[in-house]
Amino acid sequence: MARPQDLFPTRLERKLGMFERLDPVVHTPSERLSDGPLSAKQVREFDERGFLFFDSFFSKDEMDGFIKELKDYEDDDDLKLSEGTILEPGKEEIRSIFGIHDISERFDRLTRDAHLLNIVRQLLDSDVYIHQSRINYKPGFKGKGFNWHSDFETWHSEDGMPRMRSLSCSIVMTDNNEFNGPLMLIPGSQKYFIPCVGRTPEDNYKESLKSQDLGVPDAASLTRLMDENAIEAPKGPPGSLIIFECNTLHGSNVNMSCWPRSNLFFVYNSVHNTLEEPYCGNKPRPEFLANRKNMEPLKPVRNP
Amino acid sequence: MARPQDLFPTRLERKLGMFERLDPVVHTPSERLSDGPLSAKQVREFDERGFLFFDSFFSKDEMDGFIKELKDYEDDDDLKLSEGTILEPGKEEIRSIFGIHDISERFDRLTRDAHLLNIVRQLLDSDVYIHQSRINYKPGFKGKGFNWHSDFETWHSEDGMPRMRSLSCSIVMTDNNEFNGPLMLIPGSQKYFIPCVGRTPEDNYKESLKSQDLGVPDAASLTRLMDENAIEAPKGPPGSLIIFECNTLHGSNVNMSCWPRSNLFFVYNSVHNTLEEPYCGNKPRPEFLANRKNMEPLKPVRNP
Repeated sequence: MARPQDLFPTRLERKLGMFERLDPVVHTPSERLSDGPLSAKQVREFDERGFLFFDSFFSKDEMDGFIKELKDYEDDDDLKLSEGTILEPGKEEIRSIFGIHDISERFDRLTRDAHLLNIVRQLLDSDVYIHQSRINYKPGFKGKGFNWHSDFETWHSEDGMPRMRSLSCSIVMTDNNEFNGPLMLIPGSQKYFIPCVGRTPEDNYKESLKSQDLGVPDAASLTRLMDENAIEAPKGPPGSLIIFECNTLHGSNVNMSCWPRSNLFFVYNSVHNTLEEPYCGNKPRPEFLANRKNMEPLKPVRNP
Repeated sequence: MARPQDLFPTRLERKLGMFERLDPVVHTPSERLSDGPLSAKQVREFDERGFLFFDSFFSKDEMDGFIKELKDYEDDDDLKLSEGTILEPGKEEIRSIFGIHDISERFDRLTRDAHLLNIVRQLLDSDVYIHQSRINYKPGFKGKGFNWHSDFETWHSEDGMPRMRSLSCSIVMTDNNEFNGPLMLIPGSQKYFIPCVGRTPEDNYKESLKSQDLGVPDAASLTRLMDENAIEAPKGPPGSLIIFECNTLHGSNVNMSCWPRSNLFFVYNSVHNTLEEPYCGNKPRPEFLANRKNMEPLKPVRNP
């Protein structure tokens, strides 16, 4: 059922040009910009560029237990059959495990790490909950890429996320380098919404999580944004952190190296921005992709 | 007809481990290492790493005429139908044009550029001729990658190149950056020959030039070499030059950026290393891939 006005129209049959976003990138009012934990300078950088990178935000020691647990999952045959687990196209390798914080108490606690959570709450100026969590494996030689996209474009059209008041934290689990398909971002792209062409089929996620074709911005808009601000691919050791806004365009290339690239993603959404019916008119996607059940504000824990 | 002894057995039905190469990387005798144009240090670097990079070897002014000519070819419908022209898999875009020095007098002269040719002759310690020339286009968003391979592995098995005494010069035609699928090389990999598994079908080149599956080294050998010496991807503006040995493992990733990446390749072979019957037992590949007709030693020209 189409609503009278969709502020972020997308998945249309005809092309519609990009336009400036309606919502703030940083939701904190200016008089509280310096309240921390991020400095006013860091907040302004996030506002301007749509992401922040922290080399070794967590120490290697802090990460070791998480990395070991993920390795165990790689060999878990039950998990491969689980509905939140996405395999590489035509392959036996795991591409993504969704709902990692539902599977593991350890990862659940990590979503509430006080330092991390306070940064998220500062930027969104709100209590938050987990909209989605996942681990993206990208095995050496075999890991496929992710095409350019705005997460918000999908979350709005397929999950009914009303406004831009969410962000992703990507925690590096294995060294991210130039050759193993690191996350690439287009600085400044969060400032625009790019409507995408093409109606969304029911159960689109079964294809889109393996290879995204719908929800990919047109070449002209991508070219304009890349020519303006180039592309960046933050690199760092396990424990490094990339925080990126829900509308920042990003993607990643094939992993042609022998070095696996695993990144953990926690998506935080403001409790004032909970999901409605999907704007594309389809039925809602499964819970493991878009949480509609547990929207209690997260409470910080020390030393998860 | 199989010969009694093939020094570089490959395209086999069973796996055979990698072994040290038999031929020198640098053919110049040590007493003439300093005769130039390359310094003894540069020659030793080529010997050790299997490639050399020269930022802006040619100036932008020198390159302009060549770049313009290549742009014209992109829109040349006759050329798209020509047998030396390879299109992207299932696409209309040109992937490669072979025999560029046969098509264009300007590029033919460039193969004989005195500075370039004297470097090649120094490293191979011999007069040389063009075994193959090509331009690889890699259009923005659509340009596909090239899987890891040793050129010599193909040239030996499919073209009958007897020994390792050839090299490639790749001249950068559009800025090569981190995101448009630059050439990646594995330093030190030229020291080993890696037999590949799989019989070569007749006319294999019709597939392999679009997407290489045969002639790709096994993951264990690649991992060993990458773990030893990592991967490098030289980057630079038009006119930059990469010289790499015929057995140096290389590949390149998909171009996910908006910026096209075009590189010119001239393959020089020693006049003492001319082609025999293909070692895989198939009929020879077409002339545009493997020159058997014109093996006159190249003579240097100034200011091509």
